[in-house]
Amino acid sequence: MTESIFKVVAYRDVEASVFGDEAPGVTIRQLISGEADGAPIYNMRMIEIEPGGNTPDHDHPFEHENFIVSGSGEVTYEGAAYPVSAGDVVFLPPGARHQYRNTGEEPLVFLCGIPVSRGC
Amino acid sequence: MTESIFKVVAYRDVEASVFGDEAPGVTIRQLISGEADGAPIYNMRMIEIEPGGNTPDHDHPFEHENFIVSGSGEVTYEGAAYPVSAGDVVFLPPGARHQYRNTGEEPLVFLCGIPVSRGC
Repeated sequence: MTESIFKVVAYRDVEASVFGDEAPGVTIRQLISGEADGAPIYNMRMIEIEPGGNTPDHDHPFEHENFIVSGSGEVTYEGAAYPVSAGDVVFLPPGARHQYRNTGEEPLVFLCGIPVSRGC
Repeated sequence: MTESIFKVVAYRDVEASVFGDEAPGVTIRQLISGEADGAPIYNMRMIEIEPGGNTPDHDHPFEHENFIVSGSGEVTYEGAAYPVSAGDVVFLPPGARHQYRNTGEEPLVFLCGIPVSRGC
């Protein structure tokens, strides 16, 4: 396991990777991770969705803990849509089908936490 | 263990509790927790420090994962101070002595994640 290392970094200085075809207009930054920083149990990522873009409508056996930093859009949970905007907190339980959609006119930017044990 | 429950909530609608004498000018909101929401491993809290206020200079055997939402100030890590402002990410490893101080003129507002197993 990676040794835990103190760090302070502006999130915009962390490389943004293109998510892929299943998530049009989406990038992800690995802000704090088990692999790179020795985070014991939790990875913090920043996801940005361009206007009109969306994450996949998908599910997995682990949770998300989200915080909307800026922009507006909607999160779907088991097919039902809920509006979200800056300052909102979203808890998506393990196993829930979910998707984020940017329905606004500026980027939808949100923190997305997942367990270290479940990937990057 | 509490069943995991989907939720969307504006962070300002979550009750803010006064931290206490050891943290002048500080409040904390429990945004996502194991106890209330069935979060499996990680509690997300929002901490707000009034200008001139600070959290205790303390340590504990678990980490913090922080994101600065607004305001400015400094975080001390093992006695050395680092400036922080909106958009910064801070990883404080387990066991590190640390403190947040609001050195600005508006509230310093930041997310603070800790393991469910280590308290609220």
